[in-house]
Amino acid sequence: MPVNLAPPSHLQSIAGIQIGTALAGIKPSAQRDDLTLFALAPESTCAALFTRNLFCAAPVVVARQHWQQKAPRYLLVNSGNANAGTGQTGIQAALACCQTVAEQGQCQISEVLPFSTGVIGAPLPVDKIQQALPLALSRLTDEGWLAAAQAIMTTDTVAKGISLQIHLENQVINITGIAKGAGMIRPDMATLLVFLATDANIPQPLLQQALSEAVAKSFNRITVDGDTSTNDSIILIATGQGQGIVTTANDPTFHSFSQLLTQACLHLAQTIVRDGEGATKFVEIKVEQGRSEAECLQVAYTIAHSPLVKTALFASDPNWGRILAAVGRAGVTDLEVEKIRIQLGEVTIVEQGGVASTYTEEQGQHVMQQEELLIRVQLGNRGTAQASVYTCDFSYDYVRINAEYRT
Amino acid sequence: MPVNLAPPSHLQSIAGIQIGTALAGIKPSAQRDDLTLFALAPESTCAALFTRNLFCAAPVVVARQHWQQKAPRYLLVNSGNANAGTGQTGIQAALACCQTVAEQGQCQISEVLPFSTGVIGAPLPVDKIQQALPLALSRLTDEGWLAAAQAIMTTDTVAKGISLQIHLENQVINITGIAKGAGMIRPDMATLLVFLATDANIPQPLLQQALSEAVAKSFNRITVDGDTSTNDSIILIATGQGQGIVTTANDPTFHSFSQLLTQACLHLAQTIVRDGEGATKFVEIKVEQGRSEAECLQVAYTIAHSPLVKTALFASDPNWGRILAAVGRAGVTDLEVEKIRIQLGEVTIVEQGGVASTYTEEQGQHVMQQEELLIRVQLGNRGTAQASVYTCDFSYDYVRINAEYRT
Repeated sequence: MPVNLAPPSHLQSIAGIQIGTALAGIKPSAQRDDLTLFALAPESTCAALFTRNLFCAAPVVVARQHWQQKAPRYLLVNSGNANAGTGQTGIQAALACCQTVAEQGQCQISEVLPFSTGVIGAPLPVDKIQQALPLALSRLTDEGWLAAAQAIMTTDTVAKGISLQIHLENQVINITGIAKGAGMIRPDMATLLVFLATDANIPQPLLQQALSEAVAKSFNRITVDGDTSTNDSIILIATGQGQGIVTTANDPTFHSFSQLLTQACLHLAQTIVRDGEGATKFVEIKVEQGRSEAECLQVAYTIAHSPLVKTALFASDPNWGRILAAVGRAGVTDLEVEKIRIQLGEVTIVEQGGVASTYTEEQGQHVMQQEELLIRVQLGNRGTAQASVYTCDFSYDYVRINAEYRT
Repeated sequence: MPVNLAPPSHLQSIAGIQIGTALAGIKPSAQRDDLTLFALAPESTCAALFTRNLFCAAPVVVARQHWQQKAPRYLLVNSGNANAGTGQTGIQAALACCQTVAEQGQCQISEVLPFSTGVIGAPLPVDKIQQALPLALSRLTDEGWLAAAQAIMTTDTVAKGISLQIHLENQVINITGIAKGAGMIRPDMATLLVFLATDANIPQPLLQQALSEAVAKSFNRITVDGDTSTNDSIILIATGQGQGIVTTANDPTFHSFSQLLTQACLHLAQTIVRDGEGATKFVEIKVEQGRSEAECLQVAYTIAHSPLVKTALFASDPNWGRILAAVGRAGVTDLEVEKIRIQLGEVTIVEQGGVASTYTEEQGQHVMQQEELLIRVQLGNRGTAQASVYTCDFSYDYVRINAEYRT
């Protein structure tokens, strides 16, 4: 069950973006739309970030190449099959789908970016996708965001999306984004996919800069199980059909837009943790007083990835020894342990190298029973850097979901 | 249930080492001996390695200091309480126990090394240990190894020990060692403890060199959950009361001794994985054709720590996409994925960037159903370096054991 997460009731359309979905039946058992087509107005700019996994999926290879060549006119997304671990055949399959979109949508093949999510290693059913494309094209509408948020899901339990708006002097800027699950949600289900769009007019280099900065503070700050997928892709389109206009990086509008974008990305990233595999708790791990953000992150991720900490969170057990041990092995070798302070919510559990004199088990228990909690580590006046990482607990359901056979 | 692991039926005594155990009742529920005293003949040399966790336990702080001052005469080990996260009070408690041993054993306090394993954060019951010491002293015997292997257990399910012997020209060298569980076996139970002894005569610097090399290839090649404990300690005593004599590092006897020691350490290390928390599989991950051992280890540990790989191992699911994804995100950035070969036992699953053309699900299934298996990754003729890491799977029992309340 997701932690405090409801699907969006409405997603604001973005002038210049139309979306159509269709049921291609990519998995024989598919009962809901599994194909999504985004049509982007000409003159749109597009920023993108792709997985750093070397074994990236065929659609990632193709999308990256096409995106570097031309601004895209169409994004084609299928769920139910990741087209990953499929070698050269997979590349050909992705290209064949792009070619069909290009023919039916009257653009060049390099103006189509493909995205896939689902089972790894199975051949992509190109014919099913080609057959469903005319329906998706015929259904293109400004109002397609909510349907798309549902169609890109694999084993996510809740559709994920957000719309934000900012009112500047004489300008309104809209951002809408949708996302699907982090981690490999169940055997062979891969991929974080995020599609964001704004009606602002922003040059591509600035759009890319804003996306990179926003992702660094959001999607790159979450972890469910530490496993980087083969298919992760994040796309941000700026259609330029609204009122907002950004021209330079010093433009105050760019600053406002970047903040809005970060807010949207952080929301979507957190929804993915809330819907993490078997999650029962939503946890922020905040490390402060570091010399650099990097060392704060190093400590935060060591805690966030510790199976011992994660199972204690599942059990609502204030097992502070595990948090302390994780800090101690995080690889920041010149920490002065007697200066470190660790808090669970507002309760101080560790100070002066051991359990705090004021700490009682009842206090720890009280905090640990909450569904949302904060683990706060102060490194002892090394500096002013800080960083937060968001994660969930490790439950029986995590093992069940990931140990089930792939059938 | 441990994977193919029985307790040792006999452990060879080592001339110059006497061991006595007693029931101190450190945990009120204790039903078996929980205190172990090793008495070392004068002139013994002692090599040691301690945890690199910065939050190391009080006995580790004291043992390291004493060991640097003088060759030890006594090792005092308690199970049931780790004396970790106990700050300055914990240090005083460890010293108080050493002082009692020094008085009753007629040596200096710095000739006593303390070791503790068990619950983190609870005060060490010094009085109980002091009261049980006379009994342990009175029971000192050459034949105490097996009793010690049992007395140092916390939630290990099987006692762990080995005796090896090598016959050289005119020399016989004996090594006996015992170990207790890796990882934090259950809430607040910490510590890998290993005690090894040989009757050979070896100068301390060479003994330390041999231990460091052996541990690098054994205890530093295993992982259950990636969590480094606060109490890990490994001790190797050379009593010099046997026939073997080592004088220099070029001595062939030293080479033979080092090999024998590595063999003993590898056996003990593997027993710890076999008895890992909730383990149902024993897995070797072997990475070959690397430029350096470091990059081979980087890939091997990424696979070994992946919760997705570990849950697939538990399910006997040949989910090769997860292994491939782990290799791809291991951080060796210039791997050529199309040259990488991944095998499950003798079955090739990945080659040329995707699933092998000869691979069938039945073959993968067959290998995955075995209790002991080999995951072999060839990095594609980058070099001749190789490294193996040993691990176990991730089962419901792992979560159960670690999520249970500490009571």
